[in-house]
Amino acid sequence: MTDVQVPTGQRRSLLIKPGEVEVEQATVPQPGPDQVLIEISAVGICGSDVHYFEHGRIADFVVEQPLVLGHEASGVIRALGSAVTDRQLGQRVALEPQETCGHCKQCQAGRYNLCSDVQFYATPPVHGAFAEYVVLNAGRAHPIPDTLSDEAGALIEPLAVGVSANRKAAVEPGDRVLVTGAGPVGLLAAGVARARGGWVAVSDTNAYRLQVARDRGAHATIDATQGSPRDQQGEFDVILECSGAGPAVLGAFDAAAPAARVVLIGMGAASLELPVSLIQNRELWVTGVFRYANCYPAAIALAADGAIDLDSLVTARFGIDEVADALTALRRDPHTLKPVVYPSR
Amino acid sequence: MTDVQVPTGQRRSLLIKPGEVEVEQATVPQPGPDQVLIEISAVGICGSDVHYFEHGRIADFVVEQPLVLGHEASGVIRALGSAVTDRQLGQRVALEPQETCGHCKQCQAGRYNLCSDVQFYATPPVHGAFAEYVVLNAGRAHPIPDTLSDEAGALIEPLAVGVSANRKAAVEPGDRVLVTGAGPVGLLAAGVARARGGWVAVSDTNAYRLQVARDRGAHATIDATQGSPRDQQGEFDVILECSGAGPAVLGAFDAAAPAARVVLIGMGAASLELPVSLIQNRELWVTGVFRYANCYPAAIALAADGAIDLDSLVTARFGIDEVADALTALRRDPHTLKPVVYPSR
Amino acid sequence: MTDVQVPTGQRRSLLIKPGEVEVEQATVPQPGPDQVLIEISAVGICGSDVHYFEHGRIADFVVEQPLVLGHEASGVIRALGSAVTDRQLGQRVALEPQETCGHCKQCQAGRYNLCSDVQFYATPPVHGAFAEYVVLNAGRAHPIPDTLSDEAGALIEPLAVGVSANRKAAVEPGDRVLVTGAGPVGLLAAGVARARGGWVAVSDTNAYRLQVARDRGAHATIDATQGSPRDQQGEFDVILECSGAGPAVLGAFDAAAPAARVVLIGMGAASLELPVSLIQNRELWVTGVFRYANCYPAAIALAADGAIDLDSLVTARFGIDEVADALTALRRDPHTLKPVVYPSR
Amino acid sequence: MTDVQVPTGQRRSLLIKPGEVEVEQATVPQPGPDQVLIEISAVGICGSDVHYFEHGRIADFVVEQPLVLGHEASGVIRALGSAVTDRQLGQRVALEPQETCGHCKQCQAGRYNLCSDVQFYATPPVHGAFAEYVVLNAGRAHPIPDTLSDEAGALIEPLAVGVSANRKAAVEPGDRVLVTGAGPVGLLAAGVARARGGWVAVSDTNAYRLQVARDRGAHATIDATQGSPRDQQGEFDVILECSGAGPAVLGAFDAAAPAARVVLIGMGAASLELPVSLIQNRELWVTGVFRYANCYPAAIALAADGAIDLDSLVTARFGIDEVADALTALRRDPHTLKPVVYPSR
Repeated sequence: MTDVQVPTGQRRSLLIKPGEVEVEQATVPQPGPDQVLIEISAVGICGSDVHYFEHGRIADFVVEQPLVLGHEASGVIRALGSAVTDRQLGQRVALEPQETCGHCKQCQAGRYNLCSDVQFYATPPVHGAFAEYVVLNAGRAHPIPDTLSDEAGALIEPLAVGVSANRKAAVEPGDRVLVTGAGPVGLLAAGVARARGGWVAVSDTNAYRLQVARDRGAHATIDATQGSPRDQQGEFDVILECSGAGPAVLGAFDAAAPAARVVLIGMGAASLELPVSLIQNRELWVTGVFRYANCYPAAIALAADGAIDLDSLVTARFGIDEVADALTALRRDPHTLKPVVYPSR
Repeated sequence: MTDVQVPTGQRRSLLIKPGEVEVEQATVPQPGPDQVLIEISAVGICGSDVHYFEHGRIADFVVEQPLVLGHEASGVIRALGSAVTDRQLGQRVALEPQETCGHCKQCQAGRYNLCSDVQFYATPPVHGAFAEYVVLNAGRAHPIPDTLSDEAGALIEPLAVGVSANRKAAVEPGDRVLVTGAGPVGLLAAGVARARGGWVAVSDTNAYRLQVARDRGAHATIDATQGSPRDQQGEFDVILECSGAGPAVLGAFDAAAPAARVVLIGMGAASLELPVSLIQNRELWVTGVFRYANCYPAAIALAADGAIDLDSLVTARFGIDEVADALTALRRDPHTLKPVVYPSR
Repeated sequence: MTDVQVPTGQRRSLLIKPGEVEVEQATVPQPGPDQVLIEISAVGICGSDVHYFEHGRIADFVVEQPLVLGHEASGVIRALGSAVTDRQLGQRVALEPQETCGHCKQCQAGRYNLCSDVQFYATPPVHGAFAEYVVLNAGRAHPIPDTLSDEAGALIEPLAVGVSANRKAAVEPGDRVLVTGAGPVGLLAAGVARARGGWVAVSDTNAYRLQVARDRGAHATIDATQGSPRDQQGEFDVILECSGAGPAVLGAFDAAAPAARVVLIGMGAASLELPVSLIQNRELWVTGVFRYANCYPAAIALAADGAIDLDSLVTARFGIDEVADALTALRRDPHTLKPVVYPSR
Repeated sequence: MTDVQVPTGQRRSLLIKPGEVEVEQATVPQPGPDQVLIEISAVGICGSDVHYFEHGRIADFVVEQPLVLGHEASGVIRALGSAVTDRQLGQRVALEPQETCGHCKQCQAGRYNLCSDVQFYATPPVHGAFAEYVVLNAGRAHPIPDTLSDEAGALIEPLAVGVSANRKAAVEPGDRVLVTGAGPVGLLAAGVARARGGWVAVSDTNAYRLQVARDRGAHATIDATQGSPRDQQGEFDVILECSGAGPAVLGAFDAAAPAARVVLIGMGAASLELPVSLIQNRELWVTGVFRYANCYPAAIALAADGAIDLDSLVTARFGIDEVADALTALRRDPHTLKPVVYPSR
């Protein structure tokens, strides 16, 4: 496996304009001194990929040049930068798709996700992972055990979001945890909450997704079309808001117990009318999640230990020539959870 | 001092209806087994007293029966309940004006201010301290040193709000702290922030109050009529929002650095349009303050040590027959900071 | 079940002097206003019970009058004090066997286990639970679901120690946790660590106990007779020291990673030679556990959820006339984990 | 100031063997891409410098080659590495004298002081600052305001130790803080504790140093020859142990209140007999300080704000040819606090 010959050319999929992707031939990049070259195995489709595909932008991030999408990725190390000593050729890795400056206040304090110079895959103008080969800082290429599949390696990325959210909420045994929104991130956040010992209720308006939540171990599910979480299940010590939908956010605050921790994960409107007096009177702790820092090792440990099943989230599989199909899968089939692209197959 | 004879009757000031207070004769209450009887020395006027006086209600708390206002109080212990062993007759005390159940989850966890059975002075139907005598749980009657004046003893209460807010924000040396709103609570919160080693900027629209803030040791002041805090002073690690005013709240969020702690102290609208994406992208920590728990000892220590000057906040003095004047002082004189009532003089 | 007639007399087991217990007839106590009367169902034998039985003392606590031992207990509420509103007759409960003053600094801060006036069952001169009936503060009688057995209800007590230790160590996914000592407390602490998402290795010198640890889900076991934990399994982020044995403590420090949290749970020598320079150079966080505060709800949740199996710890069963046999079971059979006494059968 | 011509040669002082230093001619180093070249202004003498001078080693760190001592330093930036964009020629800086790998678990987590590859000035084989010119990572060269003297800039280093210790102890208003040992580090740790709002008592056996502590604002001093801290001043919420002396450490633990935080700062014996049962029964939090991470900005802020006076610690001044005198000043004059060397004068 370590003797694989790296070609000089590769294929990658570019977003040309909203609704249009095409595969182009490109050179295989050279890793910088601290980087590794990775042959991509599997890439999950994230809601942000779909959003860029459909709208060509997310908030202030506009796709002005053709862009390689995809940031939930696993692969195999095929070349090492000159200064890399702690990685090996042939190592299977989950990609933490961000490079940061390392010397700003946030980086130094251990919050490198808040680095103002962060370069994040598939966020214009930084290319992502719908490609046969990419380069990445060696420290961000996290080895995974052979017991984890390529797909699981790719889905370490959304799992890391769940790890980060749960860490911020400091979920622990005895906590009643409400997860609003049962998409992939909500399901994974719920899984992490349960793996930390919390009692977990998941709410959604989609009966299929609630069934998936139950199958994945949620202690209770809440059909959000049938009344508020508080009315149905009482109050909660922790809220992990994964929907981004206004009414769900308000229901989340309503269900918060005194001193509850509320983590806003789902992305929606830039601003919302929030119940300030509730935040005050109950002394809630409200925060948000912007990606993750120092979360991959924990995410890999949870997946490797079997506490979180990632493979079963995969609902459809695509080659690099089928990226458009992958990006539209959710629109076509409401039972879609996580489409996966295999750039190198 | 300990041989004072307690009379059987007393005078107290009642809010009869919005805009109308009157002094009535009442019996001196008997302390319960765990309570002490306190002869009130001084009572500060709080914005909530003014609000009840003007509107007869605050949110869902409606004055339906005549109510004794006043909850920022100091006094002298004049009688001990049968089970009280750690207080003495004649002891001067600052009153922490709340009684809590002691056995609910919040009380047991050290967050007794969030007890759902809290009885708080001057919140209907619980009487306050515009009276010659009151009873209070002994543990909530905090001894103060002789170096503190009666007025300072009364103003331990708003100082405790500042202590609580700063504790939640974990202000420490190296932090840049923005206090929005330079009323008494803002000035005290700013003082505590400085006493914890923070670098403190205070913003307001009122030039006189900004001058007071400077006189009290603020490192910088921001005239909020001249642009945003961020434009004038850059970003901040901690925001203590003490105005409750919508534009100030938005300016506060705007000025928050990545990972900043934002504490909402000032009371205003029940809900506000808040920048959810900022909370997420900067991973802000947002919380509120609902009174205080375990804050009086620290507040007394700060005042006794001279780190915070309380006496200079007092801008006018009134007898128990002049409570209406005290409650309207702020409307009459914009330089008013803290009117004080002396029920027993 | 709620119509049970409470008798006026009961039987209870007293420690008369080291090595001698006898059953005596006693009156059934009356609950105080805030207490409940509990008919005891099951009582686990703790090492401290054995120590009092064998030596008549633990450190400064000397058995000077006949003492009822036993503090790991479950039972059924048979009478309510006059002020109790949130408990019901017939309710099955786990007893948190401590009463505290409620108003000291530690109680107010949520650390009531550190109350200097704590009254703890089976600690002279406070009687314990080897009796048909006891009284307890209602708030310390924690309802348990019907899915938990009487034995499980009793063993919530040692499980709460494990909950407290893990909470202090803030164990979370990604943490490598070393538990030194595989007695009941070590096994339960390991179970909680796993339930919080940690990767758990358990060390002991006793091969049988290591087998039990493996059966209960430890990720690895370490035979402490075959070399240090560090040599066998590398370094750890968290150490839960449950043996109290000097060499194990030193091995625990040796295995601590930089910034590791070390919790000293096992009781042994009053003082030990500890590696101060290691604590400094690795900036370890070292603390200890003195019983628990606010841990019963989490312990009950973990047991009820099936995350921790308590029933399988029970290795022998005794009636109230067989307390001496129960207290010597460990000496007679090295495979003994948890003997249980049933006072009311 | 920015047009200063940097020479190619410089003078620096080397420790040749215990008790012998000599000045040698050396080349001025070239900064690497991320480094700056600094002309050294002032260097404080630390106890570790004295220890290397007297013994040629500290624990496992042995001076095997001639070594430049000195790590408490200030200077002026004279050249910039090719990748440095956020520093300027002529900028006055306090040197944080450590370079770390940036990618290990500890560095990524914000605890770079625990990096296993740390290169620390004046720790063999890394040269220190008794030299006219040194190079340092730009991010570790912290700009200081013109209001701070060169000596103050140098003493930011020991102040940062005090900042780190106080941060670990989370000192805040209302805390009673005991500082054991009134040498420079103890005096600075006490100053930071006071600047955070703590009530501070300082103990020592040296009457002169206690007088200095009082002059610097300690609320109380304790003559350790006259009885234990607990006997003289009661119990404390925080202990900052700065002496490293066995009896002081034991007295520190003895004086710790329940749940107190104990930080071991002073270096002494590699191991000590510590009261494990006290740590357990009082649930103390014990940790140590190994230098600092992310503390320089706060230290500079405290000094710049006037909260901590650094200049008055300087008790003697020396040129680079007088380093031996500087290193022996403490032995010659018991009133010595901080000798300072000026390499470039």
